[in-house]
Amino acid sequence: MSYPKQMLDTYPRTLNVDAGLLTATIDALNNCAQACTADVDDDLSEQNVTELVKCIRLCLDCADVCTVTVRVISRQTGYDAHVTKSLLEACAATCKSCGDECEHHAKMHKHCGICAEACQSCEQACRELVGAIK
Amino acid sequence: MSYPKQMLDTYPRTLNVDAGLLTATIDALNNCAQACTADVDDDLSEQNVTELVKCIRLCLDCADVCTVTVRVISRQTGYDAHVTKSLLEACAATCKSCGDECEHHAKMHKHCGICAEACQSCEQACRELVGAIK
Amino acid sequence: MSYPKQMLDTYPRTLNVDAGLLTATIDALNNCAQACTADVDDDLSEQNVTELVKCIRLCLDCADVCTVTVRVISRQTGYDAHVTKSLLEACAATCKSCGDECEHHAKMHKHCGICAEACQSCEQACRELVGAIK
Amino acid sequence: MSYPKQMLDTYPRTLNVDAGLLTATIDALNNCAQACTADVDDDLSEQNVTELVKCIRLCLDCADVCTVTVRVISRQTGYDAHVTKSLLEACAATCKSCGDECEHHAKMHKHCGICAEACQSCEQACRELVGAIK
Repeated sequence: MSYPKQMLDTYPRTLNVDAGLLTATIDALNNCAQACTADVDDDLSEQNVTELVKCIRLCLDCADVCTVTVRVISRQTGYDAHVTKSLLEACAATCKSCGDECEHHAKMHKHCGICAEACQSCEQACRELVGAIK
Repeated sequence: MSYPKQMLDTYPRTLNVDAGLLTATIDALNNCAQACTADVDDDLSEQNVTELVKCIRLCLDCADVCTVTVRVISRQTGYDAHVTKSLLEACAATCKSCGDECEHHAKMHKHCGICAEACQSCEQACRELVGAIK
Repeated sequence: MSYPKQMLDTYPRTLNVDAGLLTATIDALNNCAQACTADVDDDLSEQNVTELVKCIRLCLDCADVCTVTVRVISRQTGYDAHVTKSLLEACAATCKSCGDECEHHAKMHKHCGICAEACQSCEQACRELVGAIK
Repeated sequence: MSYPKQMLDTYPRTLNVDAGLLTATIDALNNCAQACTADVDDDLSEQNVTELVKCIRLCLDCADVCTVTVRVISRQTGYDAHVTKSLLEACAATCKSCGDECEHHAKMHKHCGICAEACQSCEQACRELVGAIK
């Protein structure tokens, strides 16, 4: 069993959102943060790095925003729906911009294609979780 | 001269926003992140820690969100207004919730009052920068 | 296939360390960061939170240090063995302190036991990777 | 009065280290994190970005490590000298590597010179604090 699921299963109170949906979003955010951090590094290793500057920049933003979003949604105690929702919306917007940029380089660089996929999954997961928050 | 200002002064291209406004927001975000990290620790040191759980939680969120927001707005290359704006809005919402909660404890705990002040200044700085982004 | 593995498989140059060992350490660090972030929140939700203050504090440190260590070791371009090794050693020391503290609360709180296990695995993974760096 | 100082002045218990030394190290770490984040962005904006890849990479590491170190040393409750010392040592090592690399580009790029100075001050501050920890 994954650590996000194990930890949610032993939460001492009642979760504020559906556990399955929360676990899926945590996984998508961790995957996206990892893919973006690695894609920055891959881009820096390419010969045409000057053409990848916008991709590097958005991947830096996206790794940062996903890393913080996973922390905030993992916190269920003293829950504030407004904070959670506004951050998930910012995260979805960042994943959208980053995923679109990575997609442009997917044919030339396989790592950008994998990163685009992680961004798209993460954007969708964030939007689904926003929709489930009352 | 402060490091945010020194670094912005040597940026090789044209900044996407007013340098003075950007410097002020960077300072407000760094102050707020520092105040919130310290306030969590102060709260954990108090005897009535059980009454400060919501304050701790929101300060954790606020420190995280401010730290990431300062990184994103410090990046001017490959600039994406939509990413910047949505994150500044999430950051202002987080500062608002956190500042309100800290304010409740300000009479009993001086550190919460100082943190509330840092949150309020930061919320205002984020909203001003959002307003200046076209 | 996991994202750490997919991204390492498409790295444009030669990795500085064994890919399998690197993937395992990235997974252990991400698991430990997630477990520690969740354990802070679980502790804050318990009635005996005053007895869990040291556990909360060390889990905050451990989540932060693991999150940064996974970023640094995921970067293979412009590699600096000294930076990587010293951070992995600090991370192993943090996981050791945090794991020991969580272990003390494992009988009373199942979430602390799961977190202790994540810390122990992560400490071991960091030490193995340090040993493999020339 | 600066926020690090204001917050330390209202800490409810006794600090584990000298308040003046702690404040100076917090300031040096925040300055260095800010300078490194901005220098990555400046480097990405330069025409000779391919020659700055190692500088970008080390500035990413240094910004990350300084940001986490400032959090850990700002936490005085449930204090663990071993965690603090090992992280300060890793941070000093990272500032040294990053500062040396930035120094190489200081003649050509003024922003790298300012960043090198921030790294050197931060390395020194971390080493002084390590020396003061019993």
